[in-house]
Amino acid sequence: MGVEYTTCKKKICVGIVNVTGYAGVELARLLCHHPNVEITSVSGRSTAGKKLGEIFPHLAHLNLSVTAELGEVDFAFSALPHKESSSVVPTLLNSGVRVVDISADFRLKDSALYQEWYNFEHPAPELLTEAVYGLPELYRSDIAKARLVANPGCYPTSAILGLAPLLKAGITGSSIIIDSKSGISGAGRTLNLGAHYCEANESVSAYALGGHRHLPEIEQELACLMRGVRPNVTFVPHLIPMTRGILTTLYAQPGEQAESIDSSSLKMLFQDFYKDEPFVRVVDAPPQSKHTCGCNICLIYPTIDARTKRIIVISTIDNLVKGASGQAIQNMNIMLGIPETTGLEAAAVYP
Amino acid sequence: MGVEYTTCKKKICVGIVNVTGYAGVELARLLCHHPNVEITSVSGRSTAGKKLGEIFPHLAHLNLSVTAELGEVDFAFSALPHKESSSVVPTLLNSGVRVVDISADFRLKDSALYQEWYNFEHPAPELLTEAVYGLPELYRSDIAKARLVANPGCYPTSAILGLAPLLKAGITGSSIIIDSKSGISGAGRTLNLGAHYCEANESVSAYALGGHRHLPEIEQELACLMRGVRPNVTFVPHLIPMTRGILTTLYAQPGEQAESIDSSSLKMLFQDFYKDEPFVRVVDAPPQSKHTCGCNICLIYPTIDARTKRIIVISTIDNLVKGASGQAIQNMNIMLGIPETTGLEAAAVYP
Amino acid sequence: MGVEYTTCKKKICVGIVNVTGYAGVELARLLCHHPNVEITSVSGRSTAGKKLGEIFPHLAHLNLSVTAELGEVDFAFSALPHKESSSVVPTLLNSGVRVVDISADFRLKDSALYQEWYNFEHPAPELLTEAVYGLPELYRSDIAKARLVANPGCYPTSAILGLAPLLKAGITGSSIIIDSKSGISGAGRTLNLGAHYCEANESVSAYALGGHRHLPEIEQELACLMRGVRPNVTFVPHLIPMTRGILTTLYAQPGEQAESIDSSSLKMLFQDFYKDEPFVRVVDAPPQSKHTCGCNICLIYPTIDARTKRIIVISTIDNLVKGASGQAIQNMNIMLGIPETTGLEAAAVYP
Amino acid sequence: MGVEYTTCKKKICVGIVNVTGYAGVELARLLCHHPNVEITSVSGRSTAGKKLGEIFPHLAHLNLSVTAELGEVDFAFSALPHKESSSVVPTLLNSGVRVVDISADFRLKDSALYQEWYNFEHPAPELLTEAVYGLPELYRSDIAKARLVANPGCYPTSAILGLAPLLKAGITGSSIIIDSKSGISGAGRTLNLGAHYCEANESVSAYALGGHRHLPEIEQELACLMRGVRPNVTFVPHLIPMTRGILTTLYAQPGEQAESIDSSSLKMLFQDFYKDEPFVRVVDAPPQSKHTCGCNICLIYPTIDARTKRIIVISTIDNLVKGASGQAIQNMNIMLGIPETTGLEAAAVYP
Repeated sequence: MGVEYTTCKKKICVGIVNVTGYAGVELARLLCHHPNVEITSVSGRSTAGKKLGEIFPHLAHLNLSVTAELGEVDFAFSALPHKESSSVVPTLLNSGVRVVDISADFRLKDSALYQEWYNFEHPAPELLTEAVYGLPELYRSDIAKARLVANPGCYPTSAILGLAPLLKAGITGSSIIIDSKSGISGAGRTLNLGAHYCEANESVSAYALGGHRHLPEIEQELACLMRGVRPNVTFVPHLIPMTRGILTTLYAQPGEQAESIDSSSLKMLFQDFYKDEPFVRVVDAPPQSKHTCGCNICLIYPTIDARTKRIIVISTIDNLVKGASGQAIQNMNIMLGIPETTGLEAAAVYP
Repeated sequence: MGVEYTTCKKKICVGIVNVTGYAGVELARLLCHHPNVEITSVSGRSTAGKKLGEIFPHLAHLNLSVTAELGEVDFAFSALPHKESSSVVPTLLNSGVRVVDISADFRLKDSALYQEWYNFEHPAPELLTEAVYGLPELYRSDIAKARLVANPGCYPTSAILGLAPLLKAGITGSSIIIDSKSGISGAGRTLNLGAHYCEANESVSAYALGGHRHLPEIEQELACLMRGVRPNVTFVPHLIPMTRGILTTLYAQPGEQAESIDSSSLKMLFQDFYKDEPFVRVVDAPPQSKHTCGCNICLIYPTIDARTKRIIVISTIDNLVKGASGQAIQNMNIMLGIPETTGLEAAAVYP
Repeated sequence: MGVEYTTCKKKICVGIVNVTGYAGVELARLLCHHPNVEITSVSGRSTAGKKLGEIFPHLAHLNLSVTAELGEVDFAFSALPHKESSSVVPTLLNSGVRVVDISADFRLKDSALYQEWYNFEHPAPELLTEAVYGLPELYRSDIAKARLVANPGCYPTSAILGLAPLLKAGITGSSIIIDSKSGISGAGRTLNLGAHYCEANESVSAYALGGHRHLPEIEQELACLMRGVRPNVTFVPHLIPMTRGILTTLYAQPGEQAESIDSSSLKMLFQDFYKDEPFVRVVDAPPQSKHTCGCNICLIYPTIDARTKRIIVISTIDNLVKGASGQAIQNMNIMLGIPETTGLEAAAVYP
Repeated sequence: MGVEYTTCKKKICVGIVNVTGYAGVELARLLCHHPNVEITSVSGRSTAGKKLGEIFPHLAHLNLSVTAELGEVDFAFSALPHKESSSVVPTLLNSGVRVVDISADFRLKDSALYQEWYNFEHPAPELLTEAVYGLPELYRSDIAKARLVANPGCYPTSAILGLAPLLKAGITGSSIIIDSKSGISGAGRTLNLGAHYCEANESVSAYALGGHRHLPEIEQELACLMRGVRPNVTFVPHLIPMTRGILTTLYAQPGEQAESIDSSSLKMLFQDFYKDEPFVRVVDAPPQSKHTCGCNICLIYPTIDARTKRIIVISTIDNLVKGASGQAIQNMNIMLGIPETTGLEAAAVYP
């Protein structure tokens, strides 16, 4: 990785843009004991000037102050909201800093989709081609070489990992239903009525039935896996009363040539696909989201509905870790040539 | 209703068999201010001999003692677990008492299904023909005349009410996916690891992927609605960390003759179907389960996924009320010729 | 109650000022099936012009629209925040409407305390003398005759009901510790970080250690009970992760003449004090707040710490019912000469 | 530390007796990435023969099997329930293994207290003298030399750490009230109605008002700090609906010589007392238990109630970490001469 990473007490100096959202503060939590890097700069907007420990007491030991602009760093994470990130990331890249962007701003290859789904004209469409979609299980070698990695959304991570073995093997048709259940932290730290305690507690609801912003991202990646066949995807996200975790239930029809597939051969297909992956585990029983809490694992349970022959896949992650900041660090590790699991070894916090 | 209901201070004397499960205690809560009935006998097993208020302090004012066997009553609810109910209900009927059975024991018309799904030989298969499936929205006039009403399961109630308008109108094919999210009270009051606080809290999981016991009940009723066409149903229930509530997300394909149906005509279809129903409300936005808490309402939101033309229906109830004890009282009201909403008028407890 | 209450289909027409906070919407929930009154006008601020059912789907059946100003009514509840209520209530009174005010604005007799604790000069100090503190267990006859009732705060209700028998009997010294645990709905419906789901969930904290605004109210009422002796009160409120409920743990020292009091005579003292109260129940075991959910009951468990001879009293209510809107309706019933429990008979929603 | 710790791939081989309770599984979670030790044996009772990952999917990577008896190890933790541990620990010690016992069985110096509080005759009273009470902040040097460390209870840890600076400085009288709020994991993994999800959720209650088993342990340690003065302690524990965390609110009266103490000098006293402690942090604002989730920190906020001059101290820990397994590992580190924070560096899992 060369000279530029050796200046800061021999550790790589990393910065976090917008440390005060849940993705930003989760990056700080996970990075603070990473043996190869040191967080040397964190920026925020309304909180600039405060000590990080004033806002987040669990990070008081980091002894960092929030600044309005990021200081000089070797590597940066952008945890800004969509639209805002697209105007900050190019500047970082121009100053020679490699970036993992946690927002949606560099995930979509077709710049027109930003107008359609996010209501803004993308200010740097040329970077959309360059940016690598940061799902290591699909794009590891490209990530290693990338200047800019677009970290996947939480729902897309759970859905794509649950579907990739099926689509690569070509054993399903294009008709796919994605029913996701997410904890409330996915709604972010910005106040909103839907995330007000008494509104969200003891309740479940579906939302974004007119089309969630993660849908074009899912479609793009599924189309790649299906070698250009346009998938016919219905995606319904739900909010459930817990802080962390996503569980996605996937429904697909076996294609004609796979009608005789059974649960055990399906499981072998998944195990084989993920056999070298440190953060995906194919499990023998329907997983609980709790068993991913605070850690970077994705648990996947594929099965066949014996009566209808439908394929059902259950996939679960911690939305803030494998669905955001943990995966961002996994991408950083790959980009820096550090062992991929570094700093991400912790087991889930159960119970 | 005649002479037999006039002995007990002019109110109808009702009994609850197995008052100590969540369905039983919810019956007691809802009935205790019903103007036309009086709970005069409650039975339990391990708690026989105790005052009801010792076990359930919120019902201390009822001043009832739990007995091993039900005393003489005009009308009875059985809130026993499946298998046990089938041996108690015939005795009640033979003594001239009309019964609403909350267990599954009289829901299925085909007695062989009890062996297949519940592992017991049904002791009174002749009653399976007589028993009326207690979904008032479909079987109101039969319920009025019944001696024995089989109260629907919680998942089936949410699923069938969400699908009935579609199937009656014949606008969907037979391929149906039912993805349900249930609070933990559905698992009952009997201790089990899955309902242990620290295991269930902050977690979501799918279960019964090999086939949930509510599936044959759903299939039976959908087949009736489809005039004998066998539906091709996948049903995946999930547990989510809250006490009460079920939200069911239904996915169906419009049939050939309905491909051009849009969301507003779909909504009109539902509104028309339920226009006279006191406990079903077709709503304009995806509902929250919280808005049914403690009350007998079913909220339904039908829509079309514009991109894929799939029909999506969201249906939500309180699993202990419209999904169990509230519906049982609604059935009792119909059987007794009392206005159907009597004792069930309370609005949801929000927030 | 005379002519003025007979105009509206023979029911008393009531209005709710600021229906959109949690106290306001809880009033609407509880009143909507009250047999003697009809909600005919509800006002709100930012939501004026909307149907009530758009904001609160569980109240859609009320078919009311939110207006900026309250229409003509026979009786009014003000559920405005403190300071705002004090400028609206006098106008209502002047138009001949009797009022229960749920805010703190008429609870304190000493107007200087508003400057000290609420940072505003009270605009109608003359009403502080007239207003009756709306704790029926202490002031029932005054409430019956009042034009203006100041509904007690949630913490004060739980604390005063737990202490009144002790203080009236003079068996404790003035040293009192009040340790309260409240659900999050006490923080209101206005968005704030402390009530953001992911901040409040899975966490407990103490707050307002410099002095909570309910303290002067508690002190005022305890001083009355102690016949002018100034109590030496420490009050520490805590937020715990649930929606509804307050449990208050009270610690006091027996006075010299009561050193030999034991738990059973203490219990008899409480039972005797509350023997005619419909909404206070002295219980035999430490109560769970859950057994008050949605209902107007206060459960009290007094005991003696055998090792230290300290008196411990546990008191629990639903903060939105007996701690706010239920008690307000209890006060209205008393003011209108209606049986006190009317509309408040529902048992707690358990589990 | 010598030869015996060098056999197992140069790491110290540790065993966990009763890995299947919450303290046991938390030990496994925390130890699995400890750089100096390796878990080589885990025992359980009903689960003997199973893979650890079958019971606890988040620990599948450990690739351990549960055995009925512990295998040969260098160091052992006993996570058995009280009474059972006292019969297993002597055997371990006799085989030359040093032990941290998480149960209560070696915490009390007076063997008669086991009869009084735990209903059994202690089988090894001679070990009660030898065992060191494992609160490093008070007994670090003794722990370093101990064969047997009795790991403190969760409530005592939070209470003693909050009181020690006061009692050592002699600035309080003996009258102390301890009001603790605990998450449900403190009730253990064994099924019981109080920890059944629907009973514990959305509820708060006090319990053990007749005397909690942690009281004699607290009294013993406070008496030591007060140099033999018998403290006059009332301790009331409460259960609140969350999985992890204890927050303890302590009330004390300043002694005569300390009546003029103010909040800032009180804070300095605490800061000075804990200035070298890696796991105690004196904070500037009332802490949230959430900021300790999953980590070994104790946050303490001392203040003076300005109106009454009472001292209030808020202390919060994760009951399973600093209140059990984290502190056990801290003790192990001290016993083994390993830096005390090894394996315990992770920041709290927030949000």
